[in-house]
Amino acid sequence: MFEKCDLSKKIDDKTFEKEIKPLQVEIGVLTRALWEHRVPIIIVVEGWNASGITMVISELIQHIDPRGFSLHSVGSPNDEERARPLLWRFFTRIPAKGRIAIFARSWYSRSLAEQVNGIDWKSAVRFSIDTINSFERQLADDGAIIIKFFLHISKEEQKRRLDEREGNLLTSWMITKGDWDFHHHYDSYLPVIELFVEGTDKSYAPWTVVEATDSNYTCLKVYSTIIKRLRKHLDRIESSGKPGGKNNGKNGIIKPPKTTVKRQSAPQVEYSRPEYEKHLVRCQEKVRDIQYLLYKRKIPLIIVYEGWDAAGKGGNIMRLVRLMNPRGYDVVSIARPDQTELDHHYLWRFYQRFPKAGHITIFDRSWYGRLLVERVEGYCTPSEWRRAYREINEMEQAYVGSGGGLIKFWLEVSKDEQLERFQDRQNDPLKEWKITDEDWRNRAKWNEYEEAVEEMLSRTSTAEAPWTIVESDDKYYARLKTLQTVIDYGRQLLR
Amino acid sequence: MFEKCDLSKKIDDKTFEKEIKPLQVEIGVLTRALWEHRVPIIIVVEGWNASGITMVISELIQHIDPRGFSLHSVGSPNDEERARPLLWRFFTRIPAKGRIAIFARSWYSRSLAEQVNGIDWKSAVRFSIDTINSFERQLADDGAIIIKFFLHISKEEQKRRLDEREGNLLTSWMITKGDWDFHHHYDSYLPVIELFVEGTDKSYAPWTVVEATDSNYTCLKVYSTIIKRLRKHLDRIESSGKPGGKNNGKNGIIKPPKTTVKRQSAPQVEYSRPEYEKHLVRCQEKVRDIQYLLYKRKIPLIIVYEGWDAAGKGGNIMRLVRLMNPRGYDVVSIARPDQTELDHHYLWRFYQRFPKAGHITIFDRSWYGRLLVERVEGYCTPSEWRRAYREINEMEQAYVGSGGGLIKFWLEVSKDEQLERFQDRQNDPLKEWKITDEDWRNRAKWNEYEEAVEEMLSRTSTAEAPWTIVESDDKYYARLKTLQTVIDYGRQLLR
Repeated sequence: MFEKCDLSKKIDDKTFEKEIKPLQVEIGVLTRALWEHRVPIIIVVEGWNASGITMVISELIQHIDPRGFSLHSVGSPNDEERARPLLWRFFTRIPAKGRIAIFARSWYSRSLAEQVNGIDWKSAVRFSIDTINSFERQLADDGAIIIKFFLHISKEEQKRRLDEREGNLLTSWMITKGDWDFHHHYDSYLPVIELFVEGTDKSYAPWTVVEATDSNYTCLKVYSTIIKRLRKHLDRIESSGKPGGKNNGKNGIIKPPKTTVKRQSAPQVEYSRPEYEKHLVRCQEKVRDIQYLLYKRKIPLIIVYEGWDAAGKGGNIMRLVRLMNPRGYDVVSIARPDQTELDHHYLWRFYQRFPKAGHITIFDRSWYGRLLVERVEGYCTPSEWRRAYREINEMEQAYVGSGGGLIKFWLEVSKDEQLERFQDRQNDPLKEWKITDEDWRNRAKWNEYEEAVEEMLSRTSTAEAPWTIVESDDKYYARLKTLQTVIDYGRQLLR
Repeated sequence: MFEKCDLSKKIDDKTFEKEIKPLQVEIGVLTRALWEHRVPIIIVVEGWNASGITMVISELIQHIDPRGFSLHSVGSPNDEERARPLLWRFFTRIPAKGRIAIFARSWYSRSLAEQVNGIDWKSAVRFSIDTINSFERQLADDGAIIIKFFLHISKEEQKRRLDEREGNLLTSWMITKGDWDFHHHYDSYLPVIELFVEGTDKSYAPWTVVEATDSNYTCLKVYSTIIKRLRKHLDRIESSGKPGGKNNGKNGIIKPPKTTVKRQSAPQVEYSRPEYEKHLVRCQEKVRDIQYLLYKRKIPLIIVYEGWDAAGKGGNIMRLVRLMNPRGYDVVSIARPDQTELDHHYLWRFYQRFPKAGHITIFDRSWYGRLLVERVEGYCTPSEWRRAYREINEMEQAYVGSGGGLIKFWLEVSKDEQLERFQDRQNDPLKEWKITDEDWRNRAKWNEYEEAVEEMLSRTSTAEAPWTIVESDDKYYARLKTLQTVIDYGRQLLR
């Protein structure tokens, strides 16, 4: 596709001035209107070094209300970012509803720089493309407008510009050896960039390749492309009477194959108290060793706890971490989202808490809330929770694919056992705070929850991230089983 | 004070088991009660290497609800943190109301490590102590309980423990050359640590030095100290019927000397349009050069814009950044705080947005909201805004003292000019969105705001961070004046 570009395109200053003016006014009007409709907008500007990314963005933001956008300048990742999966730093930067995020370079440059060094670069590119496509589709499904530019210049033009910058005292220090290395490999990067652009040129997130030799032409093309996309989206919203993105939701709902996951609350084995205590300490010591080794090998691990109210999640987690080094793990309790979280894609708040390399994050409830409480209580629309099966599977696969460990526990108790525990809590002044009216309300909806649980387990048990059912009518058994599962899984990871 | 410690203190296992049990129950009860009163708790655990910081924290958190605390393990700063003032990374980690933040090492270790290397280390320590004292006092004034421990062991004991860890396969890789270096300099660090501990041992944030040779003794002393502090605080709250911290506010209200800052809305000079345009571009080019040089020298710069509604802040900022490189600056618009922000100290949300080294952050409204809108509209209590004069001065001084640049603009317009601009906006369909009922309501309170403005300008114009009044009845003049101020100040910074 790049060879078809006519890199000699030019626009003279007078024509430019005349044509850009109305576009500058219109972009202000359109972005304000979309802000009122709470539509998030993502603008990605990619391109060769010295192709004018900064210039384009500089021009663009003059006419957008500075209160409405954030600019993310993407360079090498910092320590914190390097310790996490590639997309983490971008997912945490997606715009809230009604805001604009402009990316000066993006996940594309980073994928190119970080994943195309190995021997097996072709499959790395394939994996990157798949991961990026699901990332962008998820954002589009959530209502975001995604506009992507690649600024294209020839190798000769690039050399001319690098030389020019090196000749200027104010800018010469910014040109590094890396820039020249990249320049010398222009021809080998070209096909890889084409592969990326073609593989990620989707209807929900199309690319515009801009012939960037002349800055007037470049600016005009960028402006008019953005305006066309924004206007189209706005028209659709205003004619349908609701935000456009939600409609796209349908595309995202593809039913993954069902697996049968057998729920069971009664354990096969029973432990006496002394047996339990002996096993417990031994397992805890092994878990501690595994934590050290994961830390040393810089492998991150996520452990998800889901289960019925009073299934014993809290006590179970306490035993799991008993001998772990507290500086290397985090227990994240997931409660109702706050307003800022509601203003973002629902996975945003979880990405923020993902573990860095070598660390363990234990989620006490998790993103599965979308498929359980949010579904049953109607906190999200049916198309939203239906879409979530696929979104969650993709997120987990991307994370596991990048080398992270993931264990998912479902703590199953019988309805009778739950009742007994509720009553116990109510009668114990030290435990009373643990039980609320909400627990009783949830219990009244047992059947609806059961349906949601069944569907969740069967649709999100994948080869990369299977569920482990923990039979929790007996707390001793349940605790030993989770510990043993972590030990077995940890050893596999460390192999 | 350290020489008085009896490092041979010991407690046998049986006594320990008997004494620790009731404390473990009580800590759970107390932390839940304080959570209900929305009191934030900060626990700092400092000490020599291998003094058992991790062990103490491990024991402690077993009996605190994991949903209630965050553990912050403080090591070397990452790139992001290194690029900001020392306290930045800690202020962004303070607990929300009702939550507990446990720091495994803290601002003390970091001050020691980072600021005690230079020749002038004594004055560095003095500066650190002052900065830390105001930081902790501000948190205590806001209602936080601050509990600080220093785990003390002898040089011989430290050597024994380092040797032991090096002999263990699982832990040997964790002992670095740095640990041994630190060990060899034990005797030279001791007096500096004493200086720190004595200089920051305040009633609102007292130190407890723990003789940490025996782990039973250490745990018991830490537990009982925490319980004593929490119980005392809780008793005070329950007897007074309101959260304890607010009462302390009085201590913080010390009136700084008044400076007279003359407000004036009419400029001395008038510019014709062509004159303006000529100056404008020249100034913008100079500002761009200054931005490059600040970036190169890694100096961060904050520019604060405050002023009457319709004083022209937005347009002024637009002209200021016109030729700046957008990848190096951020415009932060401050609106009403959200719930998460309200749950923290009011300066918390501003710290989060402070520029990193070499970057420029422009605040379109700022922390001065506390002294303006929050005061006039009664969004905070009188003791809160009275305390804020000092808190803000301290924050600005700490930031400037650490090498950052700070410019504060007050955009002054006359009441008549404001009226004219309001009417203009209302009559222009492209500008109509800029004017709201709230603007008219604020205007009705002009006199109250004027009093607040006068007091703010006079009490927060310090030598380190003076206000610049921008006479804004004439927009051309105002824009050129801010640009020229940034140029002059920038040159000073770069000297």
